[in-house]
Amino acid sequence: MELMIPLNTKGPGPMYEQIYRFIKEEIRQGNLTAGSRLPSTRVLAENLKVSRSTTQMAYEQLLSEGYIDSEPCRGYYVAQIEELVEVKEAPAGRFVPEQEEKGNGIDVDFSPRGIDLDRFPFQIWRKISRNVLVDDNRALFLNGDPQGEYALRQAIGSYLHSARGVRCRPDQIIIGAGSEYLLMLLSLILGGDRVIAMENPTYKQAYRVFRSQGYQVRPVNMDRSGIMASELDGGMGEGADTVYVMPSHQYPMGTVMSVRRRQELLSWACAKEGRYLIEDDYDSEFRYKGKPIPALQGMDQNGRVIYIGTFSKSIAPAIRIGFLVLPQELMMRYREKAGFFSSTVSRPDQNILYQFLTEGHYERHLNRMRAVYKGKHDILLGGLRDFEEAFSIGGEYAGLHVLLTDRKGRYTEEELEKAAGKKGIRVYGLSRYFIHPEHNSYPPTVLLGYASLSAEEIQRGLKGLKEAWGIA
Amino acid sequence: MELMIPLNTKGPGPMYEQIYRFIKEEIRQGNLTAGSRLPSTRVLAENLKVSRSTTQMAYEQLLSEGYIDSEPCRGYYVAQIEELVEVKEAPAGRFVPEQEEKGNGIDVDFSPRGIDLDRFPFQIWRKISRNVLVDDNRALFLNGDPQGEYALRQAIGSYLHSARGVRCRPDQIIIGAGSEYLLMLLSLILGGDRVIAMENPTYKQAYRVFRSQGYQVRPVNMDRSGIMASELDGGMGEGADTVYVMPSHQYPMGTVMSVRRRQELLSWACAKEGRYLIEDDYDSEFRYKGKPIPALQGMDQNGRVIYIGTFSKSIAPAIRIGFLVLPQELMMRYREKAGFFSSTVSRPDQNILYQFLTEGHYERHLNRMRAVYKGKHDILLGGLRDFEEAFSIGGEYAGLHVLLTDRKGRYTEEELEKAAGKKGIRVYGLSRYFIHPEHNSYPPTVLLGYASLSAEEIQRGLKGLKEAWGIA
Repeated sequence: MELMIPLNTKGPGPMYEQIYRFIKEEIRQGNLTAGSRLPSTRVLAENLKVSRSTTQMAYEQLLSEGYIDSEPCRGYYVAQIEELVEVKEAPAGRFVPEQEEKGNGIDVDFSPRGIDLDRFPFQIWRKISRNVLVDDNRALFLNGDPQGEYALRQAIGSYLHSARGVRCRPDQIIIGAGSEYLLMLLSLILGGDRVIAMENPTYKQAYRVFRSQGYQVRPVNMDRSGIMASELDGGMGEGADTVYVMPSHQYPMGTVMSVRRRQELLSWACAKEGRYLIEDDYDSEFRYKGKPIPALQGMDQNGRVIYIGTFSKSIAPAIRIGFLVLPQELMMRYREKAGFFSSTVSRPDQNILYQFLTEGHYERHLNRMRAVYKGKHDILLGGLRDFEEAFSIGGEYAGLHVLLTDRKGRYTEEELEKAAGKKGIRVYGLSRYFIHPEHNSYPPTVLLGYASLSAEEIQRGLKGLKEAWGIA
Repeated sequence: MELMIPLNTKGPGPMYEQIYRFIKEEIRQGNLTAGSRLPSTRVLAENLKVSRSTTQMAYEQLLSEGYIDSEPCRGYYVAQIEELVEVKEAPAGRFVPEQEEKGNGIDVDFSPRGIDLDRFPFQIWRKISRNVLVDDNRALFLNGDPQGEYALRQAIGSYLHSARGVRCRPDQIIIGAGSEYLLMLLSLILGGDRVIAMENPTYKQAYRVFRSQGYQVRPVNMDRSGIMASELDGGMGEGADTVYVMPSHQYPMGTVMSVRRRQELLSWACAKEGRYLIEDDYDSEFRYKGKPIPALQGMDQNGRVIYIGTFSKSIAPAIRIGFLVLPQELMMRYREKAGFFSSTVSRPDQNILYQFLTEGHYERHLNRMRAVYKGKHDILLGGLRDFEEAFSIGGEYAGLHVLLTDRKGRYTEEELEKAAGKKGIRVYGLSRYFIHPEHNSYPPTVLLGYASLSAEEIQRGLKGLKEAWGIA
């Protein structure tokens, strides 16, 4: 067997690595099948005009990773790798969705980002899809409006108005494939070199997007009322011209921003030209206590609030539909700077969502999910009563997770995570939501999400945590 | 009636404009219905504490745009606007896709961006969708792989390999919602301040994306073999570190880049670290003469070619699925800089496309469309025989449009467009594809796309053009 390996003396990577990568991929692709012999390191070195030590290093790497085997006299040959064979043998025409990672021995995962899909209305979604895909809807497969279909924007606007007190017209709404894309688009509209203040801890994905766009980020601490607005002038947020907040339910702290704090933010925004507040209302749908507080956007009289929302939590993450509501002034800038970007959501999908919203399915689904999550929430809080001696509970009035703080400081956050892990339970340390984890000055705290767990799993998880953390 | 108009003395826009905009939108939203009376300019000025001339200007603007009417003694009242009423009266639950704009009196639109949806396999698409949306496919509604589903990437990779000679592994493919989004993502990966050479004329959407990302663009002229590679060092393309090209079928010129020119480009790319070629293979599927030329990517031995493709032309624009194929080196940079971006394509949609590809429907569809387009192409070229005295025909071997050049220079490009327009025919002047239209030094040329037209429309269109341009 002769191996033709395209080598590039100028990189990427050293020569042995190029050889190693090439062979590894040939094996993974099934072009080199298990049992087939490889050329000796000497022959390969001659063919490729490289030194023998180069081919030896490449083979050693392959040996150490189990891609090839060697036998005295027989030389090197391709190893039998179970996992790869399996991929090859998946019946053609079947799509194998990845399993939710359970990881090493994890039995109950209190992931705060999960959602419950058991009640997803597959029937209805399927029926609507079928109706959308009829021949005389042909125009739906042509290019659509870059902002998203007008009718869908109208439906979203009217939902936002009644449910969240958002005041906007359909022409202020931009539909896009998820909040990360929309934040990327927003940064095009707002322009480069912005300085953005963020709650700390915060939603790290948003932080990553802003950083990728070259924004400077100022992490600002929070108190019980929300982000410390006083820090925006002369404090940690010094120099910021934009603030990203989650007023209805801060992630991960679960704080609901006080009305007074909202007013302070709005005043800050109005005090100088070009200041904006980005309101991420990612899971405003789920509240268990008290009246829902309308969106900050609805309080804004001066076009300073950019509202961003998504159907990832309330319908499903995989449908990839979110939306921006822009103040009039920014709409003009959008048209000028980014209006030429085609929509990132397929028109059939927009149509399906439109039907789902306007035929009342969305409201019914939300009501059902509120009841479902409330049930799980109550089971979790009921079970957590035994923890109250040692832990304080936070963020329990809204959203899909709660926070547990070790009030006696018996364990570090890491110890809490690890001890749980040993019992097969995954909990999420608060530090991972800090922009600089080393700045976390909170007492040891972990997050417990419950949306994707069954009642039984919640109970099993809590039992494991009790053992792990020595709770009687 | 009293109007509460929220005014902002600090903008956006002058006061009269804010008043005008507010009232206009109230009318558009249906909050102010046809026939209802507006306050007098005097009363409104008093209420809003602005000068009377401000309210007068606002009303004048509304009058001039037909949103309101005035009658002596009766004052101002909301006008009856047909178009708006219609939107309001669309039955709830029905989605009205926008009509393809026919514009003012345009009967036949030779749009070069159209496609033929008459043969779109709605039946099959519907059936696949239904099968995808079954309950036990629940995991499909959870977050997917940021790069796109592995199985779909595998299917795309194997299609690209056999049809286009592209050499890649599934882990080099990134699926995304359309080429504009993918180019945006690519610019994150490549990093800011790039200098990009583009064929001139070119695909303006790509140009706009690069500009929006802060790239400097160097327009480089073309000859019959494609972009003038010699201009990249010391010529018009001086200083470029990236080149964006469409080698299989340049848009709009229709040029197929010669093999030699491809080699020159590859040599240029290898001559210096960090140089890349972006190969946009947007409509490689349709060729009528000669063998298909494999993708530039397949000739690349050194990881210098970034390949971008889409299903917009070959399936439908509205499904919003495209893909990038990155060299290994850039994949590492992708993971580091942009790997956290969630996929912009919904998992159910990826699954549908996966089934469509792997069950052979795509190939059958392409074969059918090739025949359909070949038929239209032949009708167009047959009809154009009468034009040959006055016009030369170009770009007829591939793609979905041809170019007509006034070889005698009887008309300017603008005159050709206008004369056609008067007969209800839309043709597309070449200048609009130039980065700086004033640099267009080609003889007067127009584009005629035929994909979305019926045989009868093509013939009617040509008849109109003959009359318009005085062809016997």
